[in-house]
Amino acid sequence: MKEIVECVPNFSTSDPAVVEQILGELKGTKNAFLLDYTFDNYYNRLVVSFIGDKQSVLKAMLKMASKAIALIDMRTHKGQHPRIGAVDVVPFIPIKNVSMEDCVRLAKRFGKTLAEKHGVPVYLYGEAATKPERRDLDWIREGEFEKLAEMIVKPERKPDFGPARPHPTAGATITGARKVMAGFNVNLGTPDLKVAKKIAKALHSKKGGLSNVKAMAAYIPERNITQIGMSITDFEATPLYRVFELLKVEASRYNVPIIGSEFCGLAPLKAVVDVTAYYLKIDNLTVDRVLEIAIQNALERRGNFE
Amino acid sequence: MKEIVECVPNFSTSDPAVVEQILGELKGTKNAFLLDYTFDNYYNRLVVSFIGDKQSVLKAMLKMASKAIALIDMRTHKGQHPRIGAVDVVPFIPIKNVSMEDCVRLAKRFGKTLAEKHGVPVYLYGEAATKPERRDLDWIREGEFEKLAEMIVKPERKPDFGPARPHPTAGATITGARKVMAGFNVNLGTPDLKVAKKIAKALHSKKGGLSNVKAMAAYIPERNITQIGMSITDFEATPLYRVFELLKVEASRYNVPIIGSEFCGLAPLKAVVDVTAYYLKIDNLTVDRVLEIAIQNALERRGNFE
Repeated sequence: MKEIVECVPNFSTSDPAVVEQILGELKGTKNAFLLDYTFDNYYNRLVVSFIGDKQSVLKAMLKMASKAIALIDMRTHKGQHPRIGAVDVVPFIPIKNVSMEDCVRLAKRFGKTLAEKHGVPVYLYGEAATKPERRDLDWIREGEFEKLAEMIVKPERKPDFGPARPHPTAGATITGARKVMAGFNVNLGTPDLKVAKKIAKALHSKKGGLSNVKAMAAYIPERNITQIGMSITDFEATPLYRVFELLKVEASRYNVPIIGSEFCGLAPLKAVVDVTAYYLKIDNLTVDRVLEIAIQNALERRGNFE
Repeated sequence: MKEIVECVPNFSTSDPAVVEQILGELKGTKNAFLLDYTFDNYYNRLVVSFIGDKQSVLKAMLKMASKAIALIDMRTHKGQHPRIGAVDVVPFIPIKNVSMEDCVRLAKRFGKTLAEKHGVPVYLYGEAATKPERRDLDWIREGEFEKLAEMIVKPERKPDFGPARPHPTAGATITGARKVMAGFNVNLGTPDLKVAKKIAKALHSKKGGLSNVKAMAAYIPERNITQIGMSITDFEATPLYRVFELLKVEASRYNVPIIGSEFCGLAPLKAVVDVTAYYLKIDNLTVDRVLEIAIQNALERRGNFE
């Protein structure tokens, strides 16, 4: 295939009927393919991962966003994950024969179209940011949906597209371009959110933790445990084993056991390979020394043989 | 592509000029693609990994074997890895749209042709074995090249193809079919081969160790260290982390540090994923939750979009 863009939109819902309708828009779009989706009620958030060529991804994303804006009412939304809108954040990610600049252009086209069509204010972030502080999702989300009306009128917070007032039910949307990142959640054997928050703080880059790591704590009522939810924005520079081992160190201080982990969304192969290489002390393990990838590479290099 | 067979022949050489000529035969075969090769002088052994459709793999393998038989003289061969011939062992491995039975048939055609063409005796092993004990490479290799002349005349050791006497310079060849396996070498911070042999024995399945694990010890003169060389024939049933952790336990008994590891040949993704899942305590990590594989699967399921 010629080009592949990945898009990982986050919608502020965990209502199965709404999830189904949003995914329906994707499934009805030619040349856009669902990879994965996940939602849960403690975050009250749907994360979708899909791929396609540039045009198809943009088309599918606009349809999904329109559906989400029609169905989600932020005035009644509660959830432990920070968010400012129904279509909260929409990153475009270059995968194959697509540049970061292509993805920046896609984000701008998506943002402009969404603002014009629905009157939703849109911020650009990541590689698409128009000011340095806007590269950071957390900065844009400050105050969340609840304080959006008072934040958005500040001159330094003027949206990149659309009006300087929240959409009444959909809030605002953040879109941009970024590299593939790793979402990684670690479950702690304690219901104590205060302790979990201390551990999250110890890991968070801006609070004295590890570079390239954002960490937050959440309570999971069904299991009466807490979870450290992390985004590792550059897992090549800050590999997952380092994050995990440091989390162990910080948790042991409070005698809190780690009871399990999960990738939030799909696992980038480089992140997996680096973990294996660390624990097994392998010096020369690279992505292209994985059998399945070596096969793919050999066939792409030399052509297929049908 | 329609079908993929992998072939991982082991040749008894580490002479760069001979290696180059053997690989030249593969590179000159249409629709057969080199994945990887490795050779070293302490094993005095070349391991090649290549793929193709059934016909092309068979054709390439016969050409490589003919070249190896022409160039390698076992009468002067020394090496730490057990071997009985110039073309020592030739496994065919089903990868895609190819059954184990297809690979058994390929092994038989390869063995029969090689025996007829060069007068080399051939044993069938693994899934292609004609008797239960012949499933096991070690049983067939007993006595190695040096004792082949006296072993091969025993009725229970009659070759499956070719004469019941060694080829004067090429010895005998073993061929068969098997699943993908993991080759894994661990370097020990000691030159003491006796200790390394005790550790290898502790891991070897038939000597009281782990199921599905074959382990041997070798001395690496360039580095003045020893190495445990392992084949894990079923790395789903006996995952790599279990092998590695048990090796650590046995090595610590002799105060021997593990100074590094390497996959011998390519790393099967499932083996890598299981290691990561174990150390990071991930319950739900599977091969198809790896981003690169999810993308491949989505495109194969729904078609490409060129």
